[in-house]
Amino acid sequence: MSHWIYFFDLCGTAVFALSGALAAGRHRMDPFGVIVLASVTAIGGGSIRDALLGTTPVFWIRDPNYIIVILATVLLTLIFIRKPKKVPQYTLPVADALGLALFTVIGAEKALSLGLGGMIAVVMGLITGVGGGMIRDLLCRQVPMIMRTEIYATASIFGGISYTLAIHLGAANEIALGLAMLSALTIRLAAIKWHLRLPAFDLKKT
Amino acid sequence: MSHWIYFFDLCGTAVFALSGALAAGRHRMDPFGVIVLASVTAIGGGSIRDALLGTTPVFWIRDPNYIIVILATVLLTLIFIRKPKKVPQYTLPVADALGLALFTVIGAEKALSLGLGGMIAVVMGLITGVGGGMIRDLLCRQVPMIMRTEIYATASIFGGISYTLAIHLGAANEIALGLAMLSALTIRLAAIKWHLRLPAFDLKKT
Amino acid sequence: MSHWIYFFDLCGTAVFALSGALAAGRHRMDPFGVIVLASVTAIGGGSIRDALLGTTPVFWIRDPNYIIVILATVLLTLIFIRKPKKVPQYTLPVADALGLALFTVIGAEKALSLGLGGMIAVVMGLITGVGGGMIRDLLCRQVPMIMRTEIYATASIFGGISYTLAIHLGAANEIALGLAMLSALTIRLAAIKWHLRLPAFDLKKT
Repeated sequence: MSHWIYFFDLCGTAVFALSGALAAGRHRMDPFGVIVLASVTAIGGGSIRDALLGTTPVFWIRDPNYIIVILATVLLTLIFIRKPKKVPQYTLPVADALGLALFTVIGAEKALSLGLGGMIAVVMGLITGVGGGMIRDLLCRQVPMIMRTEIYATASIFGGISYTLAIHLGAANEIALGLAMLSALTIRLAAIKWHLRLPAFDLKKT
Repeated sequence: MSHWIYFFDLCGTAVFALSGALAAGRHRMDPFGVIVLASVTAIGGGSIRDALLGTTPVFWIRDPNYIIVILATVLLTLIFIRKPKKVPQYTLPVADALGLALFTVIGAEKALSLGLGGMIAVVMGLITGVGGGMIRDLLCRQVPMIMRTEIYATASIFGGISYTLAIHLGAANEIALGLAMLSALTIRLAAIKWHLRLPAFDLKKT
Repeated sequence: MSHWIYFFDLCGTAVFALSGALAAGRHRMDPFGVIVLASVTAIGGGSIRDALLGTTPVFWIRDPNYIIVILATVLLTLIFIRKPKKVPQYTLPVADALGLALFTVIGAEKALSLGLGGMIAVVMGLITGVGGGMIRDLLCRQVPMIMRTEIYATASIFGGISYTLAIHLGAANEIALGLAMLSALTIRLAAIKWHLRLPAFDLKKT
């Protein structure tokens, strides 16, 4: 794994840990509960990916730096974020969007590096990108982000397709990673800012 | 894996994908969200089974046909089912019952073919049969089918026991599969139609 | 695995199966549904642990005694607990606390015996201890125990740290197991009895 990807991966871990810690704060959890929710959010998606791929022990068991990044993020969150008013309204969704974009390309990269096909790479990017936030939302009994009509899974799928396409077209790995990450992030942030949504499949009984 | 079992497995994938897509429609999800919920429903149970057995990478990573069947099912659902009124009331539970019956025997067959005992085969059938629908219901914040008193886990457990018994009694695999599938399906459909239920274990405080 | 640990593990399986069966009774599930919820609670945490570690097939597939203990516990529960009034109010949380303490040390022991570091051992203890109850609460649509401010994850983390420390300080395995289990159990029971809680991280908007 190149230095770049490793750095991206730790950044994604930190922003998802932040999003989990903020969600924990909204539910008035104690410090150890905050650690648990931050961890589940930060390493949940990658853990599901590795368990499905059979690349076990999963990544954070092999490399303790992931847990250390989570503990440091939680510590900093607990120290510096003390009042709800100090947390801008969009902090949680923006942290979640950054993590989504970073983990999507990491997951797709991992699948391609194992010799798997492009379609599976997109799915692995999606699982890595949305898995942790999904578990966070389930535990918090929130409507999972993935279930809302705002473009969410869509951003991850587009990021995964961009990465896979760029690699197939011969782009250098770093370029493909950066481009795909930016495209997923742009789509998701635009959706948050302007409340963009695709036409819904609507079978709701009225 | 024989042709028959493979065909059954793809049929189960399609009906569970349909049940996931219909659930997504009831929650007004966008097309990519529909794909995600259909996929989770269709391959969730088998993925848990394979991860627990250690037969990784899990089945749909090794054989992309499963994802293709899901994408085709979602596409057809989006094209042909446009209005809630056009979906008969029982479509979702009947699709779910078909998937339950098909995946139960597939899961039990897989366990026996790995040399595991009859009891584990019944459990593997149950996990394969109910796992995907359980994740679907959790994400949709519905009471999970498995938690309702209508005969649900029961149908899967009877199907698994029928299959295991038939094999131990020397039946050909195809016969055992067909019989067990029909018995699980009959039990579940009868429970839906006549609201059958076993006596409940009732500790509810009144 | 020593006889002691194996005995502890089966005890933890029984008390978690009991907690799952009681939760099922509160939701008026039928007998097969009770078996499913008891099983998920009793073997859910260890299954996640084994899938993440890659020690597959997971423990209860290799050793059918776990399923047998669950079935026996469910049978006894269904026979002897017939009325809500006969279940003392604290039965479910106390059974859950016992299971939490037992499974925490089992999970930590397993990680150390695989040569993993102390931090990962604490995490594995936590996953083994809280995983099953988390799935139980999600399926029952209860606020997960782990999300409440009462000391829960904290008890498991302290148990895991105690065990790891005792082993590193040269204690015999049985002594370390007993001490760590007692410390986790004491912390959790004290928290239940006196409603102890750590200061919460509070970002709740008012």
